[in-house]
This record gives sequence, C-alpha cells and structure tokens, in this order.
Amino acid sequence: MMTRNFTLLTDLYELTMMQGYYKSGNDETVIFDVFYRDNPSGSGYAIACGLDLVIDYIKNLSFSYEDIDYLRSLDIFDEDFLEYLAGYHFTGDIFAIPEGTVVFPMEPLLKVIAPMMEAQLIETAILNIINHQSLIATKASRVVYAAGGSGVMEFGLRRAQGADAGTYGARAAVIGGCDGTSNVLAGKMFDLPVLGTHAHSWIMSFPDEYTAFKTYATLYPDACMLLVDTYDTLKSGVPNAIRVFKELREQGIQPKKIGIRLDSGDLAYLSKKARAMLDEAGFPEAIISASSDLDENLIQSLKLQGAPITSWGVGTKLITSSDCPAFGGVYKLAAAKHKDEKKFKAKIKISENPVKVTNPGNKTVYRIYDKTTGKIRADLICLTQESYSSKEDLVIFDPTATWKKSTIIGGTYTLRELLVPVFLKGQCVYENPSAMEIRDYCTGELNTLWDETRRLVNPQNVYVDLSKPLYDLKNQLLSQKV
Amino acid sequence: MMTRNFTLLTDLYELTMMQGYYKSGNDETVIFDVFYRDNPSGSGYAIACGLDLVIDYIKNLSFSYEDIDYLRSLDIFDEDFLEYLAGYHFTGDIFAIPEGTVVFPMEPLLKVIAPMMEAQLIETAILNIINHQSLIATKASRVVYAAGGSGVMEFGLRRAQGADAGTYGARAAVIGGCDGTSNVLAGKMFDLPVLGTHAHSWIMSFPDEYTAFKTYATLYPDACMLLVDTYDTLKSGVPNAIRVFKELREQGIQPKKIGIRLDSGDLAYLSKKARAMLDEAGFPEAIISASSDLDENLIQSLKLQGAPITSWGVGTKLITSSDCPAFGGVYKLAAAKHKDEKKFKAKIKISENPVKVTNPGNKTVYRIYDKTTGKIRADLICLTQESYSSKEDLVIFDPTATWKKSTIIGGTYTLRELLVPVFLKGQCVYENPSAMEIRDYCTGELNTLWDETRRLVNPQNVYVDLSKPLYDLKNQLLSQKV
Repeated sequence: MMTRNFTLLTDLYELTMMQGYYKSGNDETVIFDVFYRDNPSGSGYAIACGLDLVIDYIKNLSFSYEDIDYLRSLDIFDEDFLEYLAGYHFTGDIFAIPEGTVVFPMEPLLKVIAPMMEAQLIETAILNIINHQSLIATKASRVVYAAGGSGVMEFGLRRAQGADAGTYGARAAVIGGCDGTSNVLAGKMFDLPVLGTHAHSWIMSFPDEYTAFKTYATLYPDACMLLVDTYDTLKSGVPNAIRVFKELREQGIQPKKIGIRLDSGDLAYLSKKARAMLDEAGFPEAIISASSDLDENLIQSLKLQGAPITSWGVGTKLITSSDCPAFGGVYKLAAAKHKDEKKFKAKIKISENPVKVTNPGNKTVYRIYDKTTGKIRADLICLTQESYSSKEDLVIFDPTATWKKSTIIGGTYTLRELLVPVFLKGQCVYENPSAMEIRDYCTGELNTLWDETRRLVNPQNVYVDLSKPLYDLKNQLLSQKV
Repeated sequence: MMTRNFTLLTDLYELTMMQGYYKSGNDETVIFDVFYRDNPSGSGYAIACGLDLVIDYIKNLSFSYEDIDYLRSLDIFDEDFLEYLAGYHFTGDIFAIPEGTVVFPMEPLLKVIAPMMEAQLIETAILNIINHQSLIATKASRVVYAAGGSGVMEFGLRRAQGADAGTYGARAAVIGGCDGTSNVLAGKMFDLPVLGTHAHSWIMSFPDEYTAFKTYATLYPDACMLLVDTYDTLKSGVPNAIRVFKELREQGIQPKKIGIRLDSGDLAYLSKKARAMLDEAGFPEAIISASSDLDENLIQSLKLQGAPITSWGVGTKLITSSDCPAFGGVYKLAAAKHKDEKKFKAKIKISENPVKVTNPGNKTVYRIYDKTTGKIRADLICLTQESYSSKEDLVIFDPTATWKKSTIIGGTYTLRELLVPVFLKGQCVYENPSAMEIRDYCTGELNTLWDETRRLVNPQNVYVDLSKPLYDLKNQLLSQKV
C-alpha cells in the first residue's frame, strides 16, 4: 500500500487557529466528538467506516521540510510557530466505534482527547475520511439488502470522484456487503475479491459477436460471462452465447460458471426472455447478471417484477451515493481542561435548532440489545464515569423531546460499549481487522437491526437516548447560556 | 507533489481483455474517444478538466514487481502475459481539448491512438480522472456565475469523497472560477490561493466571544473576518465584532480586510440586519461573507432577495456536485487498423437509443465562432482528413435529427481546432499551464458562451454537428449493421 502523508490535508483555518492557540498560550486538553445528524439516503442506520485510514493518517502525521517551507511562503505564520509544527506529532487519545458497526445519528463515532492544537489540526482529514467511507458502506448495505441474497459487485471506478473515491470506496462497498470490486488497485491494497470479464470494445474488436464470445470462452472457460448487448440482446447476443455454451459442452468442457451480462435496455423484459432461451437450450445453470445505472430502488423494483437476475454490477450510483453524495459528520468540542485542572469542563454549542445543540462532556456509547432476540433496543449516550449493570432497570431520555423517557427492565437486555481505544498517548493500541473480516462482522451487525429499521423507505428509527446524568448536565449548561 | 503510480487503477476486465488480445495475437492499432452525452446539473455546457493528472498518469504507467506478483496471485494470468505487462509502457498518441475549455455533449474531449492493449488498459483511469474533475469544474463555474462577480471560496474538503476528491476537486473548482480553497494540500500541490479564518471551536475555547474575536483580531489584523453565529448572530456576534473593529480603529490599526462570516440561520435576514448594524457603526467597508450548505440556486435566490453578501464559502454541494455527482464520460472504440493496413477502418457501436450510437472514425473537433461577437456559433465534429477554410460556406448536420442541417456563411465566422496533441509516440509533447493560468483561460472561455447558454435553468444548447463526410460515413455504417 502506498503510504501517503496527509498532514497538509486540512483546512487553512485549522492552522491559523493553531497559531492563535500557540501565541495565546493555550494549555488546554480538549475533547472533540465526531458525530452526524441524519442517516444518508433516508436509511434507518449508517455503517461506520474509515477508521483504517484514520489510523494510517495519525501514525504518519508530521510536517516535512517542504511542508514547512510551503507554509512559510504563505506569509501568515511566524517562525516560532513553524518550528513548533516541525516537531509536531500526535500525543493524544482516540476512541472509535469499530468499522462495520451499525451506527445512528448523534452518537460519537470517534472521540479525540488531546492538546488543543493537536486536536484542531486533525479535524478536516478525519471528517473527510469518515464521511466518505461511512457514506459508501451505508449505500452498499442498502443495495445489498435490495438484492436479497443475490450477489452485488462494485463496478464504479470510472465514475468515482477521483482515485481515492474509487479505491477506498470499493473497500467501503465490500465492507457494506458487496462481494467484490472491479477495481484492481483496491483489490491489491485491501485484499478484496476482484472480478470482471469484458466490455463492448472486446466484442467490437472481432469480426463478429460469435467469434468474440468463442475466443473469450476458450481463454476463460472457468468464468464464462458473456456481454450480450453490443448488437441486439435477444436476436444476436443471447443466441451467440448459447451457441458458444453448446460448443463448450460438446467439447466436454465444464465451466465453473457460465452466464450472460445485460448492460442496457429493459432489464425486466430482457432477463425474462433470456432466461427462457437459456433454459430451453439446456442451460438452467447459466447466470443472468445485470448492470446499467442500478441502485437499491431499481434492483428492488426488478425483483418485484420477477426479473430472474441473480448477479448485479452496481457502478455510478453506489460509488458516488448519488442520491445523497455527502455524509454530514461534524467534529465538535465537548469538553476542555487547563493544564492544572483535574476535571474536564463540559462545553456545549447552542443553536436555535434543537437538534444542532451538541451533547456536552466526556462521553461514551452503550448499545442495549434485547436479550432474547439479540436485536438492538436502543443506544445510550452517557458520561464516561457512569457505570451500568444489565441486571438493573435503565431509564433513558430522548435528547431533544425531553418529555420522552423510557425504562428498560433489568434482566431483559445486554449491554456493549461501542467506543474502543485506538490511540492512547499517541500510540496505536488497536489492530484493525482485514476488510473481509470487517465485512463478515458487518453482516452480523446488520442482523442486529429489526427489519423495520433495515427497510429502504420510511424505516423505523433506533432510539439514541441520553443517560440521566448527561441529560441533567446538558440542561444545566443550556440554562446557563440562554 | 506526490507522484503516485496508478497503473493498477483499472477495472479487472481491462486486464482480462488485454490477455485475450495478447493470446489471440491482436495486432491492431485502435482509436478510442472520450466523450459524454449530457451536461451535468442541467447546465448548457461543461468545463474540460483533468488533463494534468492524465498526463502524470500516462508518464508513470508501468507495472512494478509487486503489481505483477499481485496479478499472478489472482490465478487468471499466464506467465507470458505477465512478462509482457512487466515491460509495458505507453507508446501511443493522445489528443485532448485543453483544460478549462467549455465543451459540449458528444464531442471527443480526448482521443487515444495506440495498440489495442495499451489503449484498453488506460480506459478506466482516464475516465475516472476526466469525469471527476470536469464535473467539479463545471459545478464551480455555475456557482461562480450565480455569485455574479462576488467571490466564491471552495470550502468542501471535509465532505469530499476522499482525499483526492478534496484536493483535485479544489483545483477543478478554482479552474471553474473559485478564488481559492481552504484545502492546504491543494494549495501546496497546485499553487492555489488558500484562505480561512476560524471555526466555532475557536470561539468556544475562550471564556467569551469578545475575547475570542479580540485575540483573533490582534493576531491577524490584516484579514479580520469574524465568525458571528456561535451564540447569537445579531445579539452577540455582530455587536462583539463591531466592538473589536472599533478598538482596532481606536488603536490606529487599519486592517486590509474586516468582516463577518454567517454560517447558519436565515442568511437573507441576518445579512441585511448585520449590514445595517455595521454601516451604522461606521464600518461600510466590512465584508459580509456566508457559508452554510450553499449552491448556485441558493446564492442566486439570496442575491434576488437583496442579501448584501459579497463573499461566499461553498462546501459540500460544490465539492460533491451534489445534485449530479457523476459526469457520464465514456470511452468508445471509433476505429481500428491491422499492422499491415494503412487506413483505419471506422467502428460504430449501435443502440436502440439514437443518442447512444457512437460517431465512427478518426475525428477532430472545430469550434465555429461568430466573427463579430466572438461567441460560439456551433462545434463541428469531422474526420481528421477534412480541411476547412472560414472563407467558405459551411454546411453542418445534426447527428441524430438528421433532417436538421444549417449553413454558416463564409466570412462570418472563425475556426479553431480544439483537440491538441498531448502525447505522440508515447512522448509528452504538451506543457500544461498552471492551474491559475487555466483559471484565467477558463474565464475567457465562459465569455465565448451566449448568456442564454450560461443561465442556470433551461439553457439554450450549443449545436454540435457533424460534417458531411462524417455524417455520410455514419449512415453508411448504420445501414450495413441494421
């Protein structure tokens, strides 16, 4: 894997603020939370993704001489501050919810505890990484859900927003449930399954479609998926594919996989007609795969129409999350303490809009599972000093509609703390699983959601509530401010 | 700049096809065109962007030992083919329309002439690069158009789809007309103006808003833009900003720039109230800048409402082109010739959908300008062997509605060939201007569009027509196929 130094991958204001803190002698240790306010694409959940690259980023944080020279050239920064930057490295703590976990609005996905200047610098890159990868993992899980057990391949590199969007997007898509990707670089970097056969240009480079198919089948008899829409799907493509499959059979060749790919036209109509032709010719095992501007809604509609497609290649709309191309993760100050103070002082950002008021203090998140079904009952955001036992009744509070509270009876639930230590005093203490391991974990995570939360449209939201002490702290700070 | 090797940034099928061509002894030289079918975001034009990175990519094309080992591990490729790959480099020609040029659907933005295997490999990366950067440059030009002369800053890194989307996206946004970016890495890599002041966390890290403003103003008296919405914009933020501006004035400090930034709330209302307060306090020179989920439509609406905002920070919706997050560039085979042949044989991809039928042959593009106004009359796609003189009448044909043709009278127009040589026999022969030079060029390019084509909604399309010989060739090939 190419290790890249993303130290300058930051907004200029992080650096002007850092110089401000430096000059004004800020000695605070602070806590920043990463959280988001709305699930993307109307989903009932999101999938946390991006921690792997965040770890890489933090490990490699340091300003090169070239970086310092560049910053000097801007005529904004003084030499003493530039000298400080030259020696900069991250010495703080980072806690995060593991990649592949289902997550919900308002809960901290990642928490940074560090000296103010260190915590400020890393805001932009952390948000860039987490926002992008969580977006694509979430979208992929929706597409895979719509496919209902048939396989989904990520095919979007050519329409991705740059190389990283293609490559890290492919990893996120596989974590979200795709079987693999067409992107060879992503395959190499993250050990993902890579797949693909041929394009229209292959067919067009031969004198006729039959010769193109025959040549391909002879070369790759084990994965003989033929693209049938270059000239005319039903009049030319499918008949030529059948002719080639028959010839393979006559030659005693038993491919591991044969099939056709539809890439244009009315996929419902064409797949049904092609299925009938393949079956009649004695190839019920031939797979029908489809690609062509697909997303979760189109796939669900095709399945409802009875289209016999069992393999999906999804490109543009997955790799860009086209109906919702940004994940709104933010990075907000939650607490601070001066060098000589022992306890953090909680910080709150108020807003006219109640959901934009932040949750103050040093927090963690517990997930509450139903003991019988293993499904999620609710998430509980609380202060780190609180402790809970699943034997006792639990009272939880809606963070904005404060009159809503509910009691979960002791003995009926289990608890799991979601935030785990990733960096402690600047040292990485977390070993991230491989992408394919995270994919398996994510499948399990999705199974902890009720069907009502997984459905594509109007899902039931999962409750993310506050503990009594956090609820009280928030109200106390609000009454001081307003 | 970090040079990265993107050789594996390709779809697997490019490599399986290449092995197919290799094994079947394909000796063809081929021509592939990059073009797109629809302008993004309902625009009347697009801005070509990405050539700089394409040049870098082609120059660095080569498979490392590690790449070859990885491909071997897939158990798809034979040793003789892997050996061929180990020695691979690009030996062909590439022609392209320069970055920053306004372009229209169906015309070749880039043309590759190379041995089949070389041309096939580079499809995916070229599309990835051109699609992403042309998308963002086009979106930026729309946002800048809406701002109507007031400045636009690109602020979207934290919501971009990965690091490249942020960085190359910032470059594309500046080429499309933004004044600069918040992205420091992009600033360093492409020598772009970088700007930014402070965030809510700066304000929150001080005991009160006034102290935060005062500290900032003392540190950065030359660019004293204060973020006024942390607590209450009109009751707290603007009054505190005015207090600080007054103190600067009393101390005899004359900042180059003072102003406020609005980042939430009703921007029309707040900007008018803030303008009145600033003017009344004696600071008519104070700038009002705004950010908060802006795009071209919101900016245009705010201007129509008379909001006195003269500086815009645009993030998410620009850096993701959120209403249209993919540019549909494709890469299609246009011609081929065997080793022993002198002339290219034109290739056509047919489709039930007339606009999906490709334009065959070795083509180029001429732009036809009105001699008096310098505005674009039409673009003409023709075969490379054709030649034109602006003294003669020109008859051009609509590529799909074939009964539509028009005559442009000799002497009333000027001609310019848009495609320029970038690589010849594998050698780069083109020196790309700097991003800021391209930005200036792009401003000029946008001035060659009629106002009716620049407007945001329902723009008048520019005619992209075929020459008579190309029109005849296309019809001849179609009648052979159908």
